[in-house]
Amino acid sequence: MEPSSSSSINNNNNNCMEEVRMDVQYPPVVAPPHKSSLQKFKVKLKETLFPDDPMRQFKGQPFGTKIVLAAQYVFPILQWLPQYSLKLFKSDIISGITIASLSIPQGISYAKLAGLPPSFGLYSSFVPPLVYAVLGSSKDLAIGPAAITSLVLRSMLTQGVSATSQPQLFLQLAFTSTLFAGVFQAALGILRLGFIIDFLSKAILVGFMAGVAVIVSLQQLKSLLGITHFTKKMTIVDVLSSVFSNIHEWSWQTIVMGAGFLILLLLARQFSLKKPKYFWVSAGAPLLSVITSTAILFAIRGKHPAILVIGKLPEGVNPPSVKMLYFEATHLGLAIKTGIIVGILSLTESIAVGRTFAAIRKYKVDGNKEMIAIGLMNVIGSTTSCFASTGSFSRTAVNHNAGAKTAMSNIVMSVAVLVTLLFLMPLLHYTPHVVLGAIIVTAVIGFVDIPAAYRIWKIDKFDFVVMLTAFFGVIFISVEYGLALAVGLSILRILLQITRPKTVMLGNIPGTRLYRDLHHYNQATRIPGFLILSIEAPINFANITYLQQRTLRWIEEEEESMKDNSVFRFVILEMSAVSNIDTSGVSLFQELKSALETKHIKLALVNPLAEVIEKLTKADESDSFIREDYLFLSVGEAVGKLSSIMENSPSVTMQQEQPPYM
Amino acid sequence: MEPSSSSSINNNNNNCMEEVRMDVQYPPVVAPPHKSSLQKFKVKLKETLFPDDPMRQFKGQPFGTKIVLAAQYVFPILQWLPQYSLKLFKSDIISGITIASLSIPQGISYAKLAGLPPSFGLYSSFVPPLVYAVLGSSKDLAIGPAAITSLVLRSMLTQGVSATSQPQLFLQLAFTSTLFAGVFQAALGILRLGFIIDFLSKAILVGFMAGVAVIVSLQQLKSLLGITHFTKKMTIVDVLSSVFSNIHEWSWQTIVMGAGFLILLLLARQFSLKKPKYFWVSAGAPLLSVITSTAILFAIRGKHPAILVIGKLPEGVNPPSVKMLYFEATHLGLAIKTGIIVGILSLTESIAVGRTFAAIRKYKVDGNKEMIAIGLMNVIGSTTSCFASTGSFSRTAVNHNAGAKTAMSNIVMSVAVLVTLLFLMPLLHYTPHVVLGAIIVTAVIGFVDIPAAYRIWKIDKFDFVVMLTAFFGVIFISVEYGLALAVGLSILRILLQITRPKTVMLGNIPGTRLYRDLHHYNQATRIPGFLILSIEAPINFANITYLQQRTLRWIEEEEESMKDNSVFRFVILEMSAVSNIDTSGVSLFQELKSALETKHIKLALVNPLAEVIEKLTKADESDSFIREDYLFLSVGEAVGKLSSIMENSPSVTMQQEQPPYM
Repeated sequence: MEPSSSSSINNNNNNCMEEVRMDVQYPPVVAPPHKSSLQKFKVKLKETLFPDDPMRQFKGQPFGTKIVLAAQYVFPILQWLPQYSLKLFKSDIISGITIASLSIPQGISYAKLAGLPPSFGLYSSFVPPLVYAVLGSSKDLAIGPAAITSLVLRSMLTQGVSATSQPQLFLQLAFTSTLFAGVFQAALGILRLGFIIDFLSKAILVGFMAGVAVIVSLQQLKSLLGITHFTKKMTIVDVLSSVFSNIHEWSWQTIVMGAGFLILLLLARQFSLKKPKYFWVSAGAPLLSVITSTAILFAIRGKHPAILVIGKLPEGVNPPSVKMLYFEATHLGLAIKTGIIVGILSLTESIAVGRTFAAIRKYKVDGNKEMIAIGLMNVIGSTTSCFASTGSFSRTAVNHNAGAKTAMSNIVMSVAVLVTLLFLMPLLHYTPHVVLGAIIVTAVIGFVDIPAAYRIWKIDKFDFVVMLTAFFGVIFISVEYGLALAVGLSILRILLQITRPKTVMLGNIPGTRLYRDLHHYNQATRIPGFLILSIEAPINFANITYLQQRTLRWIEEEEESMKDNSVFRFVILEMSAVSNIDTSGVSLFQELKSALETKHIKLALVNPLAEVIEKLTKADESDSFIREDYLFLSVGEAVGKLSSIMENSPSVTMQQEQPPYM
Repeated sequence: MEPSSSSSINNNNNNCMEEVRMDVQYPPVVAPPHKSSLQKFKVKLKETLFPDDPMRQFKGQPFGTKIVLAAQYVFPILQWLPQYSLKLFKSDIISGITIASLSIPQGISYAKLAGLPPSFGLYSSFVPPLVYAVLGSSKDLAIGPAAITSLVLRSMLTQGVSATSQPQLFLQLAFTSTLFAGVFQAALGILRLGFIIDFLSKAILVGFMAGVAVIVSLQQLKSLLGITHFTKKMTIVDVLSSVFSNIHEWSWQTIVMGAGFLILLLLARQFSLKKPKYFWVSAGAPLLSVITSTAILFAIRGKHPAILVIGKLPEGVNPPSVKMLYFEATHLGLAIKTGIIVGILSLTESIAVGRTFAAIRKYKVDGNKEMIAIGLMNVIGSTTSCFASTGSFSRTAVNHNAGAKTAMSNIVMSVAVLVTLLFLMPLLHYTPHVVLGAIIVTAVIGFVDIPAAYRIWKIDKFDFVVMLTAFFGVIFISVEYGLALAVGLSILRILLQITRPKTVMLGNIPGTRLYRDLHHYNQATRIPGFLILSIEAPINFANITYLQQRTLRWIEEEEESMKDNSVFRFVILEMSAVSNIDTSGVSLFQELKSALETKHIKLALVNPLAEVIEKLTKADESDSFIREDYLFLSVGEAVGKLSSIMENSPSVTMQQEQPPYM
């Protein structure tokens, strides 16, 4: 730096740099300790598939303990059952009965939502909870059919086969899809690919679930209005046109009854939301509604045929359904596709809700293990007349509030469902469909989460667009396309971020050796003669063209602004945020360097990370662009040392040829 | 830090921190100056679509100059033609004639490769170069048909229609695809979406072009062996089985002639490669081969019917082909798909080669403008009997070596082709196919770039896998699937990198205030009581689960290793590399903070970037996790200030409840 051009700030900086140069011995920037490709691959594999290091607990244990730990790892029930006490059982029996009172009406309703006879909803509330109690690691999850999976199951299967005109085939495909869902879920867990469900972001889920709530509620207009001829389609346009083209079928008795119970259920829900202590009001309301409405219908039986009732239901436990699994080519693709989508959605719901309550009660839920548990539960379910089950949002919350301590509450619930299946089925004969519709609407209305949507809007506009895409995609196109569109958009955003990484110009924070974004920190000041850029993304094939153009534009703008006789001599690239580089990325530095050389500008790199420096070194056969004297650990060090070069060789100006520093 | 536990290193650090605390006034970490969402959107849009800021040159110019600049911007010929001189023309006429001598035999050969009659190769070497000379900004590019695009055009179109049994329809579809390729190319340029071609990375191109070279060469076995019944398929398996099941058709006369000319051409190529001064040897060899072989065949005409010749060719310039464009639904999808793939490949070749030579001669080629030029050239070409043209790798190199100074050399070449079309077509009657095959093999053999493949292997193993995928995909499946697989794999890798970002533990570099990766810098030392982690990726929905698990594992391992009575009190997250965060990312910090609170560990953030701090602040309504006293500009500052808290409140230990610092 020429003494004539130094301002007071520069003097300060100079002093600071001086100090850096004299006092502190910075280590050279070198490649990290050598590791073979195989070692690196192993580390990467471990980080990709076993970030939680599940084998850690086995380390250094005697063989016997290892066996016990392994058994407990596979069957979590072995962890808690030996210590189980009467006190715990008291809590579990209360919560178990509470969720049973919710599961029975919801089970019947969701079977309806899935296009299946009501008894299958109860079957699905009996076997899967037992399996989960043995294999699952959550203490709060309440297992059974859920609204979203039931709806998606029906909406996807009806693309290939009608639930009303081919009920037997539809049932077979429902079991087959459940089998594939289970196999897919367990496979994700075993292969430790659970991160796939991470691609359903919070924003997608908020939009998706609101959309599902809308179409599920619209579907209930069939029951709530008493329409008999209803569209098989799901989109808002189809359903509304079906509703209004069938006005002559509307039944006022049904509408009155539906409106009455719907208001009652919604009031109970609001009350419990306001006073969480009275959670049992909303938990008990559906069962109470079923009992009351059934009693009313039984009393007026035969007099109001306009109000449709469930009718005769078979008694007894789940019939085996292995032989109903359907593997013929005509519908196999559909069953697999449905299984995968239903499987992903059921995992998303289960794991999200499991993690939420585990966090509240401060225990851990292992995502991959949960996937295996839920997967096996659905595999076994598909052979015992159950359709896709999961950990339900709403019932898990009730289970937790009712004081569930262990998975025993699921067993209690199973027993209650078993009693219903064995002895109480005839009582459901006069249960009206309209009440089931009201129960479903009440259950899904909580899916519409306006505050969450507002929060997303506030924090991130793009996420909000993703949310809207999921919402409108679901209600106007279809459940799976809405989901796919939103996921696609999220991935596109990530790719776009990578294609157009941020590069920011850094300046010195006066009085420190720190260099930060000039546009963020107003007090940061430029150092004359230096252009300090920070690249904030991995450098790869997708962004080298952009990075090159953008960097050259920074440099040209810098040159233009420097038309007086001040000198612009160094470009410093701060690389701390460049987490990775590929073969194309390496070429960026070669091209950048040769472009800068023609302008007599030197390129210095600051703090390249281990992997980056390793690859640059490997690529740099002729030692032409990775010279130790142009690699620095911090921007402060780089500015200090390069300034001293400038000072010590004042004869070297831009016009003269000079020895190649790098 | 307890005095009893301080080692000499710690003392050093302590002094260092002391100094940090006393001397230096670090500014607080605050949100960046406010910008509205619209402003931010505008900036992002500009960075995404106009990173090169093409309007910069117009700034502050008078209106007249603006008009001139705009005209020059649209028609680059206006930039160089007014200054054109006889001296330049001397250079251009030599290079123009040189590339014409290569273009004429290659044009005929590539038409064959595209499944079209030979004359269309010459048509395509006449009109497109003229259009490019007006619109293009490269001074070196030699325009005309190229091996890859010709092959892909045929291989894709034969999926729907046969080149031999329906030649007329095939020709129509070739023009239609060329039209769509041009429209797609121009659209990419106009919409400034040129970055799409960046997704074809160097690794993909090396593998893809080697694969294409293999299948193109295999295709030439038909001509080189004189087989008349040859498979229409492209994969290595199909072609080899076709070759060996037709041994009875092999013609020894053809084989001898083919081998002779092939060896000659390859020798010429090797010679020119070794002595670039004699570039004209390999540039002239194809034309010489055509002339010699035609003369031989003319001399022995009628005597050796085993050697197949081109036959009669129509004389005259390009017939118009507007009416041949085919828009009927049956093949429209195929034509569009082919157009897009051919368009992308042709852009990739053109722009890569254009940029390479522009860099050598130090002028600039604007990617988006080039796309418009090449797109319009193909649109016009499709109406004048030309199939997809591009800037060819090999001919551009010859053009450059022959001393081309401006696009005038393309005009000279066009004129030479015109002369051929008007007067010399009858001479080509006796040109044997076998020589054209030898010319094609010689041209594509340079596509196999072993040193580049070795370099990729050395730098990045995953890129090498991508390369192999492209190579084997092309030779065993198909050109477009090979390409799609490789691109898919590249994108998957980026997604995987984002799903599993690196987190590294930092330590202090003794004698400095810098904190760097402990595994990279051996001299770096841990600070007792602190866990300092650096997160090296944007935080979003795809990686929050992993980041949470991984961070908690670091913390647990830390706790386990600290079983003695030393205290572990602070987790410092270095955020310099977190370039972005979404709504899900925000929740990571909330969850991490509550997980740490139960362990009585405090969380401090270091250097969150502008966008990150803005979103965290917005999300943090209750001011619960973004407290200014736990935000720092550098790790050194954080360690210094937090240590002083520890020292000043020695009574606060892990066992006691304490006021919530953050």
